[in-house]
Amino acid sequence: MNTHPAAAASTLAELGEFALIAAVAGVAPTAEQVLVGPGDDAAQIRTTTGSVLMSTDLLIEGRHFRRDWSSAADVGHKAAAANLADIAAMGGTATALTVGFAAPPDLDPGWAIEMSAGLAEEAALVGAAVVGGDVTAADQVMIAVALIGESLAAPVLRSGARAGDVVAAIGRIGWAAAGYHVLARGFRSPRVVVSAHRRPDPPYAAGPAAAAAGATAMVDVSDGLLADLGHVADASGVAIDVRAAAFEIAEPLQAVGAALGVDPLSFILTGGDDHTLVATFGPDAELPAGFTVIGQVADGSGVTIDGTTYEGETGHAHFR
Amino acid sequence: MNTHPAAAASTLAELGEFALIAAVAGVAPTAEQVLVGPGDDAAQIRTTTGSVLMSTDLLIEGRHFRRDWSSAADVGHKAAAANLADIAAMGGTATALTVGFAAPPDLDPGWAIEMSAGLAEEAALVGAAVVGGDVTAADQVMIAVALIGESLAAPVLRSGARAGDVVAAIGRIGWAAAGYHVLARGFRSPRVVVSAHRRPDPPYAAGPAAAAAGATAMVDVSDGLLADLGHVADASGVAIDVRAAAFEIAEPLQAVGAALGVDPLSFILTGGDDHTLVATFGPDAELPAGFTVIGQVADGSGVTIDGTTYEGETGHAHFR
Repeated sequence: MNTHPAAAASTLAELGEFALIAAVAGVAPTAEQVLVGPGDDAAQIRTTTGSVLMSTDLLIEGRHFRRDWSSAADVGHKAAAANLADIAAMGGTATALTVGFAAPPDLDPGWAIEMSAGLAEEAALVGAAVVGGDVTAADQVMIAVALIGESLAAPVLRSGARAGDVVAAIGRIGWAAAGYHVLARGFRSPRVVVSAHRRPDPPYAAGPAAAAAGATAMVDVSDGLLADLGHVADASGVAIDVRAAAFEIAEPLQAVGAALGVDPLSFILTGGDDHTLVATFGPDAELPAGFTVIGQVADGSGVTIDGTTYEGETGHAHFR
Repeated sequence: MNTHPAAAASTLAELGEFALIAAVAGVAPTAEQVLVGPGDDAAQIRTTTGSVLMSTDLLIEGRHFRRDWSSAADVGHKAAAANLADIAAMGGTATALTVGFAAPPDLDPGWAIEMSAGLAEEAALVGAAVVGGDVTAADQVMIAVALIGESLAAPVLRSGARAGDVVAAIGRIGWAAAGYHVLARGFRSPRVVVSAHRRPDPPYAAGPAAAAAGATAMVDVSDGLLADLGHVADASGVAIDVRAAAFEIAEPLQAVGAALGVDPLSFILTGGDDHTLVATFGPDAELPAGFTVIGQVADGSGVTIDGTTYEGETGHAHFR
């Protein structure tokens, strides 16, 4: 008999990803070496002499990438970037990755090798190395990356935002989503947005820089800006308001919006997979280079845009 | 153009698992923080103040487990055990795990929650905790576990066996394979071997004990005894001879062998998934409690049984 409340849902689709993660994490016993447990971008684990950060991400063919849209090297870069950005979002730097690789037996080995090379190349951008892996047969290509890292300062959590803080972002937001929509319609341009979908370009060094500047909370934009700020608002017990005018809508996003008949602001507010960073800072903090203020933290709950609730989906939902 | 020699194979099945792992590992740049890289049971990564061990293993439905053969909790225990044993085989103890979980959206959430509970329970046997995870939809149930650990002594590698060493094993070997063959024929007994297939019982504490006793090489039995000793022989540049008479063939293995018309010694020599430990020790070492001498290390290469080559498959081969 399973008496966990989540077991009342009859399928994973009905339960939803976040509820499942919470349920799965909820069964884990606490242990004294766990300084930061499940629910943030990465965990922090005490070691005999210090601590390490640890995180994992899965990429599944057909859901996170398509082999006809992205090269093997692109997929490797993206698999690494999604994980490296999680460590950056804690204010840390990744040092080592493991890769679990499952694929149909008829896959071209060159694809696996080029994917791995892309993954190792992206990891090398922050000095991290692939230290191990496992390979097995499966019906679908699946890449499971886990990694560890370290941070010089105390890790920046999702739960530290306080009323009065400013919200600041760095990096291109919405470009990967625009690229996704272009590819989904069968187009291959504008190239800059297609490239952003294929190979995210996370501002890795901005994570430790934000931590050093006293960031109170931080997250990487993986589910979508409003959804990820929602995680910060929930974890911190605050309200966040985003100013639409803070975003300069770059020409390629305008072009894609016009071509597809979509408000390009929706790419910025709801598109995931850019793996840029968004952080909150005290009102008197000096923002690190590259960060732009995009909103404000206040008492309350939830995320608004110019004071009103955003209409429509705010981010990816798996199992639906 | 991919010029890696492994790319000459036209499919992963043709290339084989070990060649793919070597190829994938081969593209990784080396980095100064990598003290032990790919190719052993776990890697060792230098941290600012010490070092950690890190390892990963994938379990795929239909290949590593069947939901009609094993309960969700069994699968969780097995997923954790396969990984925890890798850290034990380095002489270390695991501290933290991450879990990547992919499943079809129509899966009963209770299954996922019970699997996670089993995984956390097995990890708690060594004091390790689940610290994070990722959940996504896929066609097949897939569990990717990564973990870190620590060892007090220098890690025991596969490459340290020397001519004159003895080979010693601890724990039940061949029981999981006997259980697999029983289940594959549609039977459910003897229960002890079926249980051994469902939930391996690795002698976790024997890993650090062997390291403290001066083990020169160590590996966990995951691919099959002869295959895993083959990894030690290859990595160490030595020959290993196993004595068949060293194995007392337990009654349940005899019963399964008789019922299926199979030499029960084959379960011991070639069956994987027991995740027991096999180590080599210098000729004068005092073996830790529970270890039994099963063979000898000599100059040369390869693994023999009573001086002759074993006829038949020596272990699992994925992608074939």
